[in-house]
Amino acid sequence: MNTPTLKPDAVAVLPPDATADAAVDRRGFLKQGIKAAGAAVVGGIAGAPALTQAAEPVGKEFPAWSTSMGKALSGYGQPSRFEEPVKRYAASAYGTLAPGTGSARTPLEKLEGVITPNSLHYDRSHNGAPDIDPAQHKLVIHGLVKRPLSFSIAELSRYPMVSRICFLECAGNSSTNILPPEPPQGPAGSVHGLVSCADWTGIPLALLLNEAGIDPAGTWLLAEGADSAAMSRSVPLEKALDDAIIALYQNGERLRPENGYPVRLLLPGWEGNMSVKWLRSIKVTAGPTHTKDETSKYTDPMSDGKARQFTFEMGVKSVITRPSPTMKLEAGLHEITGLAWSGAGRITRVEVSTDGGTSWRDAALQGQALPKSLVRFRLPWDWNGQPAQLQSRAIDEKGNVQPTRKTYKAENAVDGRFHNNTIVTWGVGADGSVKNVYL
Amino acid sequence: MNTPTLKPDAVAVLPPDATADAAVDRRGFLKQGIKAAGAAVVGGIAGAPALTQAAEPVGKEFPAWSTSMGKALSGYGQPSRFEEPVKRYAASAYGTLAPGTGSARTPLEKLEGVITPNSLHYDRSHNGAPDIDPAQHKLVIHGLVKRPLSFSIAELSRYPMVSRICFLECAGNSSTNILPPEPPQGPAGSVHGLVSCADWTGIPLALLLNEAGIDPAGTWLLAEGADSAAMSRSVPLEKALDDAIIALYQNGERLRPENGYPVRLLLPGWEGNMSVKWLRSIKVTAGPTHTKDETSKYTDPMSDGKARQFTFEMGVKSVITRPSPTMKLEAGLHEITGLAWSGAGRITRVEVSTDGGTSWRDAALQGQALPKSLVRFRLPWDWNGQPAQLQSRAIDEKGNVQPTRKTYKAENAVDGRFHNNTIVTWGVGADGSVKNVYL
Repeated sequence: MNTPTLKPDAVAVLPPDATADAAVDRRGFLKQGIKAAGAAVVGGIAGAPALTQAAEPVGKEFPAWSTSMGKALSGYGQPSRFEEPVKRYAASAYGTLAPGTGSARTPLEKLEGVITPNSLHYDRSHNGAPDIDPAQHKLVIHGLVKRPLSFSIAELSRYPMVSRICFLECAGNSSTNILPPEPPQGPAGSVHGLVSCADWTGIPLALLLNEAGIDPAGTWLLAEGADSAAMSRSVPLEKALDDAIIALYQNGERLRPENGYPVRLLLPGWEGNMSVKWLRSIKVTAGPTHTKDETSKYTDPMSDGKARQFTFEMGVKSVITRPSPTMKLEAGLHEITGLAWSGAGRITRVEVSTDGGTSWRDAALQGQALPKSLVRFRLPWDWNGQPAQLQSRAIDEKGNVQPTRKTYKAENAVDGRFHNNTIVTWGVGADGSVKNVYL
Repeated sequence: MNTPTLKPDAVAVLPPDATADAAVDRRGFLKQGIKAAGAAVVGGIAGAPALTQAAEPVGKEFPAWSTSMGKALSGYGQPSRFEEPVKRYAASAYGTLAPGTGSARTPLEKLEGVITPNSLHYDRSHNGAPDIDPAQHKLVIHGLVKRPLSFSIAELSRYPMVSRICFLECAGNSSTNILPPEPPQGPAGSVHGLVSCADWTGIPLALLLNEAGIDPAGTWLLAEGADSAAMSRSVPLEKALDDAIIALYQNGERLRPENGYPVRLLLPGWEGNMSVKWLRSIKVTAGPTHTKDETSKYTDPMSDGKARQFTFEMGVKSVITRPSPTMKLEAGLHEITGLAWSGAGRITRVEVSTDGGTSWRDAALQGQALPKSLVRFRLPWDWNGQPAQLQSRAIDEKGNVQPTRKTYKAENAVDGRFHNNTIVTWGVGADGSVKNVYL
């Protein structure tokens, strides 16, 4: 009478039956795959203590944590001590020469879902994270405006706000996967982890600009941080009036110091560097300012010796986070999962190949697949123990398709390294090892 | 040529023009309200240092954090020291008599958006948070099944997963706002903060039950935790096969210890207590087990001396988080914002009253308004400095409407305190103080 059958909701993680291959895999997971995934059949269940009605496998004692009082309540919780290895990959960009500049990458391969916890959000700083007293900080809007304005954090906090889940990605993310002649070996996040995603809340920048009143000659902004690198970037007014946010909150709480506390600019879908942290000044200008940060860096040298400048939108991209390098596979069924994103809008499709791009299958996209957000994709895979090459290829609503390394190399200078959104390849060896591969 | 005008996207936070009142408020905010919200007009802008092109108000020195190197990169970040007061409200339920049982409430009034950061997710524990070694922990599925199964965390981690943003609320949330004769005074979170929201990831329980194979006589489950309170609750099989998740991740990272590390049950929309933390056993049974945790507690005494049992679904509810008690208002424009949620599905409407329920206006719902998730609502309010009574009333897709205190009191015993989803009232005094009021 109550014999359960798997309902559509419960198997929504599995791909649609749109392709014959996917259908085969889906049936495989349901009919035989689950066993292969590793559950042990218990030979016998011991009688349970009267209090609990529970059961433990034969011969097993209850562990200490089931028989003694646990830890007390806390004001601000921390992870389990067993999760201590889950950390950002932090690296100074120029060693002792310039200790303040560097990046800390999100350990993508250890995470799930699409929200990055604040403690693991990536951090790219050019002279360290300033320790700003919010009671002393001001945001000034000036330049080609009718009424220059100065806002305290308390004043900003009274304005109407918006919340938005969106990704941030450093323009230099994955640069170590395009520049060196040999593919870097290490966890996925140590190479591709300059991307994260959060629920950001703040004031639409358009609202504040409207209050200041923009002079008709104003067409760009100069956004500048209060850090001692004085990070400053030029932003077209059109973007500022579209979806730019003056962000105060990150995943519910106030911004973290390394993410711009107490206030940052947020330009959804554009290179992270432009979402200026520790924001102290927005100056309306008649054109781009060509600051040190957008001339000496964050330009894209091309093969012909020229450089592209103001390449703002982050390209369509994806990376498989599991399985990925440093993991060891056993033959049998696995879930291939990873993240896709596009600065142009929604991810509409992620294809996965297990044979280095010869054939492709559609992965399932998880949940809402919000525009300019990380999107989780999933596909079951029955690994037969033979060498394999895993790839994912994302496509967005504008029809942009994630390019190959070959395409990128043809379009960029030998030392081109920004905006590397090329297809990533993980090689699986017959021994179950997973390595980074150039294809 | 480039004179900006506020675009629809930028004012999406403001309510639609559906009602005349809302239209008035919207225009107010755009035409005059912004100024009233507190921005200071800067008299003059000083010349900028050559390096930065930036500007500071006349006579102001650059602060130390703008002229010296900031903090180094870190593996696992923490909030700014200036945010130290943002903590959970932790209280032992029975003092020294039973130090392990108590709750830590989310400081709702200090947060924004809908995601609760993991460090501030509420925690209700009955004998503290166990310090479980994930390498030693097992989840057993047994009872009326064809093949009893035992899963290690490593084994569970190979299964296909789903992610879902949903709220958890303790059945006892807001009980201190219904039981005492006088309304409790304190921040909103200290009374209503046993509710939080996260992006949860785990394995559909239906998948694991299918593998175990349920005996036709099985109609319920008994879920039990590995904590030393051996928290155990009965769950109808229908829910387990619908949207129940065996959760391993919370906002991307592994569960926090106080939220069930390394594995918990997650029953979207149902009382938090049933989403058993530190899950070690799922026993399929022929009916409810009537454990200590669902007979001595988590039942709802009624006026006639009987008690309702197995009241699983959390009611439709909302609370205004800003303005709220302990805040002090100045006359002028404010944004009224808060959270709404329903265990029955989607929130379709939140109405706000500023006159104690005499008249109501529709608030704007932020973003996706996901089912069984916290939903942020917002409404601009021009406070004229006269006493006011703020209320919010949520309505869900099933047509459920948040009830009044009077309704709840009529339907529950004098000591009824669970499932209090009644309308909350904040009284604003002529002096700008905000107090909790019973209406």
